[in-house]
Amino acid sequence: MVAAGPSDVAVVGGGPIGLAVAWRCAARGMRVTLYDAAPGSGASDVAAGMLAPVAETYFGERVLTGLLVSSAARWPDFAAELAGYTGLDLGYRTEGTLTVALTPDDLAEAERLWTYQRDLGLPVTPLRPAELRDREPLLATRLRGGALAPGDHQVDPRRLVAALRVAVERAGVTVLARPVRDLAELDATATVVAAGCGTAALTGLPVRPVKGQILRLRAPGGAAPGFRHVIQGHADGRHVYLVPRTDGEVVVGATVEERADLDVTAGAVLDLLRAATDVIPELAEYELVEARSGLRPGTPDNAPLLGPLPDRPDVVVAAGHFRHGIVLTPLTADLVADLLATGTPDPALAALSPARFGTTTPARFGTTTPAGGRPAPDDGLTR
Amino acid sequence: MVAAGPSDVAVVGGGPIGLAVAWRCAARGMRVTLYDAAPGSGASDVAAGMLAPVAETYFGERVLTGLLVSSAARWPDFAAELAGYTGLDLGYRTEGTLTVALTPDDLAEAERLWTYQRDLGLPVTPLRPAELRDREPLLATRLRGGALAPGDHQVDPRRLVAALRVAVERAGVTVLARPVRDLAELDATATVVAAGCGTAALTGLPVRPVKGQILRLRAPGGAAPGFRHVIQGHADGRHVYLVPRTDGEVVVGATVEERADLDVTAGAVLDLLRAATDVIPELAEYELVEARSGLRPGTPDNAPLLGPLPDRPDVVVAAGHFRHGIVLTPLTADLVADLLATGTPDPALAALSPARFGTTTPARFGTTTPAGGRPAPDDGLTR
Repeated sequence: MVAAGPSDVAVVGGGPIGLAVAWRCAARGMRVTLYDAAPGSGASDVAAGMLAPVAETYFGERVLTGLLVSSAARWPDFAAELAGYTGLDLGYRTEGTLTVALTPDDLAEAERLWTYQRDLGLPVTPLRPAELRDREPLLATRLRGGALAPGDHQVDPRRLVAALRVAVERAGVTVLARPVRDLAELDATATVVAAGCGTAALTGLPVRPVKGQILRLRAPGGAAPGFRHVIQGHADGRHVYLVPRTDGEVVVGATVEERADLDVTAGAVLDLLRAATDVIPELAEYELVEARSGLRPGTPDNAPLLGPLPDRPDVVVAAGHFRHGIVLTPLTADLVADLLATGTPDPALAALSPARFGTTTPARFGTTTPAGGRPAPDDGLTR
Repeated sequence: MVAAGPSDVAVVGGGPIGLAVAWRCAARGMRVTLYDAAPGSGASDVAAGMLAPVAETYFGERVLTGLLVSSAARWPDFAAELAGYTGLDLGYRTEGTLTVALTPDDLAEAERLWTYQRDLGLPVTPLRPAELRDREPLLATRLRGGALAPGDHQVDPRRLVAALRVAVERAGVTVLARPVRDLAELDATATVVAAGCGTAALTGLPVRPVKGQILRLRAPGGAAPGFRHVIQGHADGRHVYLVPRTDGEVVVGATVEERADLDVTAGAVLDLLRAATDVIPELAEYELVEARSGLRPGTPDNAPLLGPLPDRPDVVVAAGHFRHGIVLTPLTADLVADLLATGTPDPALAALSPARFGTTTPARFGTTTPAGGRPAPDDGLTR
């Protein structure tokens, strides 16, 4: 489908954020064009899909925690609507997340977090080792303790992207499989930059790549994994999460590395496998089917950049979602679509302004090499 | 090239053994046809290429040890001849093999082997930890001891196969890219069965698949690995070998599993990476570029099956080389070519007769499903 004339909205980036923004805008009657040379090939292709406002809540990130809780609350309806609209299965599962601690030191570290999370009013219930194994018999017998976050769900990001691609096409979005090097190329009333790590080069904003390595295992013989909860492990000082899918896959993640290469390293694979099998020993028998790395779009305060550029109110940024792109997809899409439809920013956007880190790296437009941004690394990721 | 009429020799199997036999036979003037649907895609594609008569010498395998020593002695001339004939680099390296032991238990186990090897007159020199690190500074500081086998060399099996394929074509061998299901299909005066694990189905001989999993690492930044010797490690009860190539690759091997599937398992990768980084910690920074499994052709006594079938003197078996196919390639090729050229078996073949395990699983011919052999697993391997 080719749009007749200029679009109301140009969306740069075909990851879950860009696709969901485009879907929501099209549903409100806007003419939308989405640009991505390879939709869904960026960070989401490597993401685990934990929808975990509790398990992802850390000290000193209250603004982010509020966003995670708010967006996670939208996930049940969002998933039902998207699945109903497309007829596709998203791999959305609501068994909840078990956090487990292997050693006394791990338990002490985890208990500090659980206390903080409960003080914020988040639903997290400490469990004794026997209670953990009642819920998941495959957990290692030497676990010291754990906690259940019943509202921390999961979705399969690859299925999510596949469904969103169907949804945007059905909603009339024009999808152009080409990269955008400069926002001046675009012919639209408003532009949404949802380009992940590529946002830096397009806008000059401080979005940096944070490398993550993950593994995909597969249960033997085509069976479903022998556990149902998402498991977040504190294992001898290492952090690991294990996300079981009904199709037999288990995602094991993830490293957090301040580097921009995409190498899969022996040390990362070793650490992930060691922590995973420390938590669920039976995983040693699972097939290792994939070892991958990706680049998360990080920001100075780990919260996303959401809202108009200070000097370009027609350019709305929806980027910098770091480790939280999947859980923040529904909220981000709603906030951006509301802003474009009404012209009035939601109060929640005040703390997320792309301008909050100052103007030392101003956005530049109309140049083929943005002077304010870091060069886009040649890493094959979507931008 | 198509042979005019029936061949003198049909070789079934295009791994290193079959290719080298074909090359040697063609060099003696025989008309040779080699059959393999996918030459070089079997066990050799996963092999490390250690030419290690000392490091591969174990208690109770004197016949095999003699073969290893004899064939390793032929490797320098064989490598020079093949490289000269084809102009190709085989990755043949002569720095020798260092065996190292991590814990006191590992050292006790290794010292028993070194004593046995020295009692057999094999060249192996114990070294203290400081002497080991003088030779290879990257070795872990907590090593308890080691030994040098200066005559244990290495070759790159993929380069070996590539060179042998050029050599056989140049020598006039007809290579047919098709599988052989039954020896009755072949039209040749003599047949050589060098079909690895597939030999069981073709002959009824007791060749069983023994699974091995290996990894390939790559030094960062395109550099050569930071060590030059082949390293054989006894690491906390685990056995690992590390084979550095000048092109930056390091092969890490290998599991020995009595199973016939080709799954790469999380537990095997974990064990290999843990042992590898225990021995050379810097390997954690290397890229993990491949995790593979293959099936070695095992025999009841771990020695190969070399010589004519008892009831079919025109069928010569060259199979069952287990962990030793690469090192045994020159000797096997010479023995088989001599036998076919002269009709007189070398005395060395007496102990390797395919008939030595009795006739309880007689060879069958002329049936499409060999009744005496186990069915060929559908695993994509050469046969």
